Amino acid sequence: MTYCVGLLLSEGLVMLADTRTNAGVDNISTFRKLHFFEVPGERTICIASAGNLGVTQAVMNLLTEGFESEATGTIESLYTVPSMFRAAQLTGEAVRKVWHLDGEAMRQQSIGFEVTLLLGGQIAGRQLRLFLCYSAGNFIEATEDTPFLQIGEHKYGKPILDRAVQFGTAMADGVKLALISMDSTLRSNLTVGLPIDLMVFRRNAERAEINRRIGEDDPYFRMIRERWSAALRDAHRAIPRPDWMPESTS
Amino acid sequence: MTYCVGLLLSEGLVMLADTRTNAGVDNISTFRKLHFFEVPGERTICIASAGNLGVTQAVMNLLTEGFESEATGTIESLYTVPSMFRAAQLTGEAVRKVWHLDGEAMRQQSIGFEVTLLLGGQIAGRQLRLFLCYSAGNFIEATEDTPFLQIGEHKYGKPILDRAVQFGTAMADGVKLALISMDSTLRSNLTVGLPIDLMVFRRNAERAEINRRIGEDDPYFRMIRERWSAALRDAHRAIPRPDWMPESTS
Repeated sequence: MTYCVGLLLSEGLVMLADTRTNAGVDNISTFRKLHFFEVPGERTICIASAGNLGVTQAVMNLLTEGFESEATGTIESLYTVPSMFRAAQLTGEAVRKVWHLDGEAMRQQSIGFEVTLLLGGQIAGRQLRLFLCYSAGNFIEATEDTPFLQIGEHKYGKPILDRAVQFGTAMADGVKLALISMDSTLRSNLTVGLPIDLMVFRRNAERAEINRRIGEDDPYFRMIRERWSAALRDAHRAIPRPDWMPESTS
Repeated sequence: MTYCVGLLLSEGLVMLADTRTNAGVDNISTFRKLHFFEVPGERTICIASAGNLGVTQAVMNLLTEGFESEATGTIESLYTVPSMFRAAQLTGEAVRKVWHLDGEAMRQQSIGFEVTLLLGGQIAGRQLRLFLCYSAGNFIEATEDTPFLQIGEHKYGKPILDRAVQFGTAMADGVKLALISMDSTLRSNLTVGLPIDLMVFRRNAERAEINRRIGEDDPYFRMIRERWSAALRDAHRAIPRPDWMPESTS
């Protein structure tokens, strides 16, 4: 499986993805799931992908190399789309194109056509936006009310985001919270694994501010993991035991 | 949906279950999911149930009123079984009996036969045990290595248990951690709802020590929710921002 999260904050965009893929528990690999389309000063677009690797790679290839859009009749790619909304539409079209090519054959092999994508970024002069595209090629968008979107194994890491992430959250705190959310997922689900890829884009910037791979040895992520563990331990220890329970013997 | 958790600790057994059921999002009700079979000094057995309400109620009725076991040819109930292992077998038999009665008709209505049960307790002179019974009527058992089992919406509340619960955890701390785990689930998933039911049984005791319903106004649970929220907020605020990120503008 996979865990990816995108935060649309007043200051900018944070996207984080793990790299573990598995075709059965005895076939585990590392594949980049955070994909990056940048022309400095002109566009910064980032996609995080979850689902069947054959499908997500096919979609990424179409979006990179371009394909004839049924909607516009022209060859388009994420390097040519004029807006993030059009980028989301094109991403949905790419998903549907792969479904038309491979969906029925996959179904005959009892393989589900599974793909979800987080698509975030900004094109010069346009809005910074963050979308979540589904297997059907339709999509939803993050808003100020709900400024984060997740794909893959999203439940373990959701409580901390539900509690702490708001549209006004500072970007550095957003990065920290996304990493904490990833840590909770890594600890509870073996199909999500290090290293993780992080992209940070400040609203209206010329280019991504951070595009960084974080592995087991990353000092900052290690520190987060250790301090978060210690803080949780201290937190539950500091909460008094129920006063309606007899004192424990241990 | 549902969230139930059982902790098998050196001191005893903790079981916690929410009460929300939903037949579609526009049909939400409160049903007790923590069921209690006790003959003081002789047996204390507790079942937490998740899945289709018609199925779980049918199973509970069979286990309460008794039915002719195919395995033994005698009428048995949770009030007659001689051991917790036999209780788990009988629970599995009850699940399969309901499946034989209703499974095919449910399938024809495209309704999945979903049921999972946590079964914990002790019969005088025998071991305290905790089982998880599946839809197929088979079951697994908690051990010292893995002293907690969950059913229903288990992912939101798993990280804190993964980090903090061990077989040697004191029972009062187990109650606290189960309530924190429930709180994380309640906050992130609307299909899990208050009130919640708590059962605490001390190993080799005459009867359950606590059998308590906890609602919105419960002072201890309110305190846990508030202090846990505050502690998490303080914890992530206390972690330094990444040193490889420029200072935030906000």
